[in-house]
Amino acid sequence: MIKVGVAGYGTIGQRLADGVALQKDMELVGVADITVTLAVRALKEKGMPYNLYLASLDNREQFEQAGIPISGTLEDLVQKVDIMLDATSAGIGAKNKELYKKYGKKAIFQGGEKNDVADVFFHGYANYEKGIGKQFLKLTSCNTTGLIRAVDCLDRIFGIDKVAITIIRRVADPGDYHRGLTNALQIDKAPSHQALDLMTIMPHIKATGILVHTPVTHGHIITVVAKPKKKITKQNALEAFNAHDRIRVVKIEDGFLGNASLFKYARDLGNPRGDMYEIAIWDESIVDSGDDIMFAINIPQEAVVIPETMDGIRAAMEMETDRLKAVAATNKYLGLGTWKQK
Amino acid sequence: MIKVGVAGYGTIGQRLADGVALQKDMELVGVADITVTLAVRALKEKGMPYNLYLASLDNREQFEQAGIPISGTLEDLVQKVDIMLDATSAGIGAKNKELYKKYGKKAIFQGGEKNDVADVFFHGYANYEKGIGKQFLKLTSCNTTGLIRAVDCLDRIFGIDKVAITIIRRVADPGDYHRGLTNALQIDKAPSHQALDLMTIMPHIKATGILVHTPVTHGHIITVVAKPKKKITKQNALEAFNAHDRIRVVKIEDGFLGNASLFKYARDLGNPRGDMYEIAIWDESIVDSGDDIMFAINIPQEAVVIPETMDGIRAAMEMETDRLKAVAATNKYLGLGTWKQK
Amino acid sequence: MIKVGVAGYGTIGQRLADGVALQKDMELVGVADITVTLAVRALKEKGMPYNLYLASLDNREQFEQAGIPISGTLEDLVQKVDIMLDATSAGIGAKNKELYKKYGKKAIFQGGEKNDVADVFFHGYANYEKGIGKQFLKLTSCNTTGLIRAVDCLDRIFGIDKVAITIIRRVADPGDYHRGLTNALQIDKAPSHQALDLMTIMPHIKATGILVHTPVTHGHIITVVAKPKKKITKQNALEAFNAHDRIRVVKIEDGFLGNASLFKYARDLGNPRGDMYEIAIWDESIVDSGDDIMFAINIPQEAVVIPETMDGIRAAMEMETDRLKAVAATNKYLGLGTWKQK
Amino acid sequence: MIKVGVAGYGTIGQRLADGVALQKDMELVGVADITVTLAVRALKEKGMPYNLYLASLDNREQFEQAGIPISGTLEDLVQKVDIMLDATSAGIGAKNKELYKKYGKKAIFQGGEKNDVADVFFHGYANYEKGIGKQFLKLTSCNTTGLIRAVDCLDRIFGIDKVAITIIRRVADPGDYHRGLTNALQIDKAPSHQALDLMTIMPHIKATGILVHTPVTHGHIITVVAKPKKKITKQNALEAFNAHDRIRVVKIEDGFLGNASLFKYARDLGNPRGDMYEIAIWDESIVDSGDDIMFAINIPQEAVVIPETMDGIRAAMEMETDRLKAVAATNKYLGLGTWKQK
Repeated sequence: MIKVGVAGYGTIGQRLADGVALQKDMELVGVADITVTLAVRALKEKGMPYNLYLASLDNREQFEQAGIPISGTLEDLVQKVDIMLDATSAGIGAKNKELYKKYGKKAIFQGGEKNDVADVFFHGYANYEKGIGKQFLKLTSCNTTGLIRAVDCLDRIFGIDKVAITIIRRVADPGDYHRGLTNALQIDKAPSHQALDLMTIMPHIKATGILVHTPVTHGHIITVVAKPKKKITKQNALEAFNAHDRIRVVKIEDGFLGNASLFKYARDLGNPRGDMYEIAIWDESIVDSGDDIMFAINIPQEAVVIPETMDGIRAAMEMETDRLKAVAATNKYLGLGTWKQK
Repeated sequence: MIKVGVAGYGTIGQRLADGVALQKDMELVGVADITVTLAVRALKEKGMPYNLYLASLDNREQFEQAGIPISGTLEDLVQKVDIMLDATSAGIGAKNKELYKKYGKKAIFQGGEKNDVADVFFHGYANYEKGIGKQFLKLTSCNTTGLIRAVDCLDRIFGIDKVAITIIRRVADPGDYHRGLTNALQIDKAPSHQALDLMTIMPHIKATGILVHTPVTHGHIITVVAKPKKKITKQNALEAFNAHDRIRVVKIEDGFLGNASLFKYARDLGNPRGDMYEIAIWDESIVDSGDDIMFAINIPQEAVVIPETMDGIRAAMEMETDRLKAVAATNKYLGLGTWKQK
Repeated sequence: MIKVGVAGYGTIGQRLADGVALQKDMELVGVADITVTLAVRALKEKGMPYNLYLASLDNREQFEQAGIPISGTLEDLVQKVDIMLDATSAGIGAKNKELYKKYGKKAIFQGGEKNDVADVFFHGYANYEKGIGKQFLKLTSCNTTGLIRAVDCLDRIFGIDKVAITIIRRVADPGDYHRGLTNALQIDKAPSHQALDLMTIMPHIKATGILVHTPVTHGHIITVVAKPKKKITKQNALEAFNAHDRIRVVKIEDGFLGNASLFKYARDLGNPRGDMYEIAIWDESIVDSGDDIMFAINIPQEAVVIPETMDGIRAAMEMETDRLKAVAATNKYLGLGTWKQK
Repeated sequence: MIKVGVAGYGTIGQRLADGVALQKDMELVGVADITVTLAVRALKEKGMPYNLYLASLDNREQFEQAGIPISGTLEDLVQKVDIMLDATSAGIGAKNKELYKKYGKKAIFQGGEKNDVADVFFHGYANYEKGIGKQFLKLTSCNTTGLIRAVDCLDRIFGIDKVAITIIRRVADPGDYHRGLTNALQIDKAPSHQALDLMTIMPHIKATGILVHTPVTHGHIITVVAKPKKKITKQNALEAFNAHDRIRVVKIEDGFLGNASLFKYARDLGNPRGDMYEIAIWDESIVDSGDDIMFAINIPQEAVVIPETMDGIRAAMEMETDRLKAVAATNKYLGLGTWKQK
């Protein structure tokens, strides 16, 4: 049993903890945070299913006043685990890395950290082999993780030369008050980092892209214009996507009208927090234009990186050296793809 | 075991079914709907935990093509149950009532139906006794249900003469595409129906109010200006609200910044669908002004009526004639108030 | 002086009337509408700068009660003009066409009508010549009008083979209550009609695209991936766009952060209604990727079609047979491009 | 001719400058700002109708590069005027005050500054006399300005004892990217500062209130529950409001459905920037409940303080000592109330 700790119990950290708890070959030792957030209050109200460690003893009193039991410090947690999943705010991971190095522990950082924090920039499907045995991995960000799933899926079957993406980005998570847009679209300088990141992970593909922030909270939508090595028909693409355990093909005509339908559906499925690990691709969005193929992806930004992070644990800890067996293990424990077999 | 059926498997119907399934003294026989919605698709993907009946055989083929097993017609379902919970679209309930009468079954309608569909307009806390043994009840709407919880709570202790409410209404549910507002507040003709409905349920209180629709999806906020029979201090109000099993007192300083924080918190609690049965009242919103007391309530519009509907089953079926024992049974099975005892 | 009438005094109709009033070689005879809208009330409060005609005498009393003077019927108006600009709701234009035919008048329909209502589907820059002398023109829709401006601009200089577009569409106009989205992105079946329309106007270009509705009110954003006949550098594109009188190149670093900045800027300019006739292209959005060039356009949906409709009058009425002289006349009267010369 | 300068050329400062330019008994000497904002770029594109002064010479180069002519420094401007209108960001006004004192000039600060920056906290209608001849005035904020207009209107006729307000606040101005909410309502600690400010200006009235931020950009809506000294019927209230030159009574049935309708209407009126100086009160929102009267106000947050600031100039400069003559002069030059006489 690989022992895992989570630093940062926010939007991603909570879901990483839940994800690890589902892996039968891993043990969640505990989670660490620095202040009494709503997530920490909810942990307490649920009866502390996970042990909580304190990133800084300065805030001890705050936790005591809120009646929240503490199992020790982040440094204590690091010593007890084989690998840390670091989901702290951007920049903190780089500091925590010193602690991980001090005790010779492995760690996986999330997309907010700079690439040089890690030995390898990692995606479970696209470059699993590069992560094997490494001490420090950095996961791709939510958009990049989902985008690469789809592009890698086509690339392995048909070969992809070039992609141009448009990211229609949700600007805040549900419950966010520290950021937001009201009645405004905001454009970032091009090319988007997601296009650049894709080229880092998949250097044989040429990528560019434009990102526009939109005032919604559930799910980015990415349109992809892909130039394949050989013609991909809509039917080809559908078959490839349908066969992928982390991709859901959905139909507008079935009621999947946009990102909000997918969030509603995940809630109706009874998924914890209304989360969805899979990206969705709309059947009716897939069009070909000459040699190119174009389609639209829904990225559930809160949960999409969880499976690839689990893959990362398997790679870093050398639990599995075969890419397909590794992702299959993650998928089995997270229940991915099983619904397709029904 | 009281046998219960649910007609209409939408936003409210799904939650009614889940709520009944949690009551140890009730049995959910099945749910009925008329078309293959996302909720129905989710039911299938979950492996049909509830039997599904067809409101109209005209759509049989549509269900078969989607591979969704059908247990019979709505008329079949009605015959198998003691009481129907009707959560169909406004106006359909009045039609379905003929079916319920045909088989001599009881029914509880939701707020969208006209008051005259039922023998009594019902609220579990405010007028439980009026529902005992009746054949047809109509529940108060989501806003009115939550509003009455808070007003009744104060009224039973201190006596309330008059209220003036401002309803800051969420305009659509998460996942709605058939309605919505974009960058606009919309005002309704005053007085709001919620003020009028409150007076129907609590005729000794004078009420008026204004309703403004806002472009958000999680939770209405109602401000209440109440004139009590005798002065209520903030401390008095806090004690009363804290003692109520369907009211949560929350603090802005703890991070409950608005309706979105409560939705996030319910998701973090692991509540199915991220639902919350309780209304919330912000501690820092409670202010007194001369004789009056003013405060703000959060109404989780998707789930708030579930407990009072369960109370309604107890009343209509004469499972319990004591108001406080009835609501206590509902609260126990839904886990309401238990977290306060920790 | 060409005599012009406007049918439908809504979002587009009001702006068409204002646009005609600015053309020194045209005379606005009057506008027609069917009911007392806010736009009609504002016309009255302004002292009736335009004569108002009634589309249906059935509503005469409604206008009288509101104290709004009427100059006659739509049929009266048609008889007084040389050409009608029809900006009525979709489908009404086709009916009105019978009236225009009855009196042998010309007409220009807006994008909501079906293509077969007209002899030619028209864009001032892209196919001016096709409209010369025709009785019935149909303008491209707002998105298509702006998109074609940019594509035609590049195509005439460099040649364009193919485009793939992503339309990030504002879902409602400011002041709309009859439609809207709340916290949701909505995707349409692909390919978008704008891509198809572009191919109708510019048949030598292959086009496809995906459209996503977003909950904002000021300005669509379109990303374009264009495959030119020969390489277009960013510098090439900038020079071409800068030289176009109906295109504004703006910079994120100057504070043009998104569609809302452009609306704010137009208000700060003192433009009536805060309108802008020009599309904007963000300098920092222009990226090349191999042979392709990608960029993002802002489409001010309320006003963008006004210049091309003025061009249409010039074509249909044979006021000018030279494309460049025609658009130059429109630009001069609307003040387009003059600010670039300062 | 009173010479006026404006410090801070943002949302409020631009409108103050435009307002002063309309007063026939005042002269706008110039405006000052510190950086090349979109508002400054628009000023340049319009041909510099107002002279621009630099708040800090540090940024001189930035202005020169943008080709924007500068007429001197803020200190130069202060020396040329009789009175400064300070609409800089919160806190800067207090610093600028030293400059105004140095040259013995008067100044009016906006609502963002602390009350102690000024000799008197001012509202043109409610306490004009207190501002006469004072060196430093501070205007009430946008919400408070509009709220007091309505409350003062009733108070002078009927006498008001107490108000309880609910402010449904727009969270950002059109074009704002530095703040915003996405799918969230946010509640502030009660009582709201607007209720406290009302009591400072009108100390004979008891006031409390709750403020909720909403994700829209055009216009706050305030509901007011007022307890009058003697009964006010709806008809009484309507007559009082209709007779006030800075109040517009509007009807839902005429199409004024919410704050967005008023913004649309102001655009359709051709008002510069689509601004409206008047508050609006919905006829159908006025309800009485026993002794109390309740109604809803729309506050156009960008422009509402302009008239009362013009009044403030008249008071501070002793241009007029009679309250009603002062506000009448402002109203005449701004065109307020004239439309009612048509």
